[in-house]
Formats: sequence, C-alpha cells, structure tokens
Amino acid sequence: MKLSDGIEQSIHSVLMLASLGEDSVLAAAALAEFHGVSTSYLLKHLQALAGARILSSVPGPKGGYRLARAPDKISLLDIVIAIEGAAPAFRCAEIRQRGPSPLDAQFFRAPCGVNAAMLRAEQAYRAELRKISIADLATDPQTPLGAAIEARGCAFLDRHARRQSIST
Amino acid sequence: MKLSDGIEQSIHSVLMLASLGEDSVLAAAALAEFHGVSTSYLLKHLQALAGARILSSVPGPKGGYRLARAPDKISLLDIVIAIEGAAPAFRCAEIRQRGPSPLDAQFFRAPCGVNAAMLRAEQAYRAELRKISIADLATDPQTPLGAAIEARGCAFLDRHARRQSIST
Repeated sequence: MKLSDGIEQSIHSVLMLASLGEDSVLAAAALAEFHGVSTSYLLKHLQALAGARILSSVPGPKGGYRLARAPDKISLLDIVIAIEGAAPAFRCAEIRQRGPSPLDAQFFRAPCGVNAAMLRAEQAYRAELRKISIADLATDPQTPLGAAIEARGCAFLDRHARRQSIST
Repeated sequence: MKLSDGIEQSIHSVLMLASLGEDSVLAAAALAEFHGVSTSYLLKHLQALAGARILSSVPGPKGGYRLARAPDKISLLDIVIAIEGAAPAFRCAEIRQRGPSPLDAQFFRAPCGVNAAMLRAEQAYRAELRKISIADLATDPQTPLGAAIEARGCAFLDRHARRQSIST
C-alpha cells in the first residue's frame, strides 16, 4: 500500500497557500519551484484540489491558486481523498461468492466479515486524518523552526505572490 | 490508495487453512480453485505468507500449505504486512528540504509535522488490524451462514486436503 507522492506535495502546497494574503494567488510554477518538484505533476494535483473545493483557481496569465476555505476547515482527510479518491483501500471482490460450489445467494446479503474488518480499520485511519487540519500543521512562528519557515515562506511569497481582486 | 487484490485472497486462504486438520495441507491449486482465482497469482501470495511465517509449506507432489501458527496468533495486520510490506503508505520525500532556498539543516532534525500526522493515522489503522485475528473472523457454525460455510468448506476439504505426517 502506498499513497501517491502527490499527497506530500499537495499538503505542503496547501500549507504554503495558507500563508498567502487573502487578495493573492500563487502560480503552480511558483509552488513547484518552492518545493523542488515537477510543475506538470504538481499541476495535476492542484487541479484535483480545486475540483474538491480545497483550492480556488484564478485563470489567466496573472492567475494562480489560493485556498477556497479557511485552513481550519481543510483536513488531511480532505486532501487525501481529493488526490487518491474516496474508494476504500480494501476493495472486496466478493471472492467468497466464487469457486466451484458457491453458497446460496441468501447468505451474501450481510457484508463479508473480512470486508467489514478491513473497513473498520480504514475508518480509524480516516478518523485520525479528519482530526488534523491545515491550521493544526502550521508551525508556531514563536519557535526557531516556525520563525525560519515563516521567514523563508515570506521572502518567497514577496517575490511570487500575485496580488489581485479575486471575483471567483 | 489501494491494497493489492492479494490481501482478500490471502485472508480467505488463511481462513480456509484454519479449518484444516493439523495433519493436513492444501495445495495452492486447491485454494485457488475454491476461491475462483488464478493459481499463479495466489501462489505468489502464499509464498509471501510462508515467508512471514504465517503459513508453512510442505514441498513435493503431496505437499501444500497449512497454518504455521494458531488462528488466534495471526492478525489481519500480519497478513497485510506480509503482502504489502512493512513500509508506511505515506513516504515522506522531505520536500520541505528542497527548492531554491532550503532551511538550514539544523531544522530538519525533528521529523516533519506532516509526516508525523500521516504516520499517526497509519498507526491507528494498524492498531485496528492488529486487534482482529483469523480466529475472530471464523463464522460461528451455529448460525445458518456459519453452518453453510462449514458444510461447503468441509466438503471441499474432504476432496482436497492432503493428510500426512508433517516434519516441517
């Protein structure tokens, strides 16, 4: 089981956009440069995040991305589902119904115990991810790490943020 | 995120082997026939389960597989790790250290908060899977479903189980 590399890129991109001014956007190319990743690959994920209404996109040569809602309203689960889809990791193919001597159909009304157990574990995973918001992940700027992250991010945003009146 | 189809096949195969007599084994081809799946694909997973000491294999034309330990000592987590590997689903590529103006190395001694949060969720997932054993998943033969599963399994095992004195 492996999550897409796009999850890490997406979470860090959303964190970066959380520090943007409300009237600003950041281009996909700037987000990719800041994280040292491929623009075309990141763009695919930014579009998925926009499709899930985590980001808004502003089209045009001065356009870019910004958060579509407040950082405390974006959970890690929202981002994981936007990138990976909502289907559970365990997908029951009902192999209990296959083979040379399958049971009578009446027995398959109740879900398979294996599937139910795997889904309970996935619910526990999702519950943990739902608890953690982008606001929770922002590093306290009072700490040396937080101050360094903020200084680095601000210097970059000063060069790359595109200020505008956004109508979307 | 998607678990391999091999997980479902492996769990159902281990459940089937849990109902074998202690002096018997079942061939990979019989397990594949019972579940209506490809023998060669299932074999790969049975070998992984044997590598993880969940199953024992008895070589030779009369050989096959049996449980290497009691059903209550085999958790769903054991099976998932045997098939998918022990690496976490989220693999931090430390993109926070990339880009044109990375922070000083001293700031990266502590793990990234994003990685820590994703790993906490994975721990919750694994904790749930660890709680559930193959013994827990056996259906109560007193119920109509359990009785039907048992009757079907017994009839199949009567035809396919290979009784022997096992030295491995």
